[in-house]
Amino acid sequence: MQKLYLEDILPGQVYGSGTYEMTEDAIIEFAKQWDPQVFHTDPIAAKDTFFKGLAASGWHTAAATMKLLVSSEFQPINGQIGAGQEELKWLMPVRPGDVLRLRLTVESVRRMKSNPTTGIVLMRFETINQNDQVVQSSRCPMVIQARSAQD
Amino acid sequence: MQKLYLEDILPGQVYGSGTYEMTEDAIIEFAKQWDPQVFHTDPIAAKDTFFKGLAASGWHTAAATMKLLVSSEFQPINGQIGAGQEELKWLMPVRPGDVLRLRLTVESVRRMKSNPTTGIVLMRFETINQNDQVVQSSRCPMVIQARSAQD
Repeated sequence: MQKLYLEDILPGQVYGSGTYEMTEDAIIEFAKQWDPQVFHTDPIAAKDTFFKGLAASGWHTAAATMKLLVSSEFQPINGQIGAGQEELKWLMPVRPGDVLRLRLTVESVRRMKSNPTTGIVLMRFETINQNDQVVQSSRCPMVIQARSAQD
Repeated sequence: MQKLYLEDILPGQVYGSGTYEMTEDAIIEFAKQWDPQVFHTDPIAAKDTFFKGLAASGWHTAAATMKLLVSSEFQPINGQIGAGQEELKWLMPVRPGDVLRLRLTVESVRRMKSNPTTGIVLMRFETINQNDQVVQSSRCPMVIQARSAQD
């Protein structure tokens, strides 16, 4: 796949990804390591919680989103480098068996004044389940290398 | 440790946590699974990248932050339930051997009008290294159960 420079990236472009299944085993394994709470680790006890059943840790969904990003259609020349996440929202629980994919939409592109061979691309991330429901959304300022120091 | 209800949580309160070491092995293992890019997986190749050396995936720092939260001084009665993260920022790279801890500061507390036995606590998360530098910051709206339906 052709690697992208800043000049190749334009507002409104949409990029897709492969898929990733959130199995019950993977949900429990991730949660035991990083987010050990019963609604993420125990399918029975989870029924009596806020989530009313086993749900993936939001950080598991976030990690899966990163995994999908790395192999997505969007391949910047300098790699996937995000400075953070604006408005990271977990919109609905991710359940065992959910199959996630990523939709990336370019919101804006700007060259850094202090360092014109680099730009910031504001990218909308939407992690979507097999029923086309957005389970996680965020906006990510990504650091992208330019082909040259001027447009 | 005494579990907290909404009524126990007041703006300005600060809660601490234990510590977590980001070893080189753990950085590489996490990245191979979730964020396989050379600056997170290969200490030699990482030298020629944006990060100028091996750096933890931001999602690894985020997962470690969640782990620190679960065992922190802040223990809501209904568990650690965040609706998302506002302004999640990775302020500096996390390097092998960094020892992280979490500082939690209550920014605001409000009861939900639609469901007065539940409130939203806006919590500032700061993940801090052994040199007292903030490596990750965010603001998290947390869902907290109230002791009763009115103040």
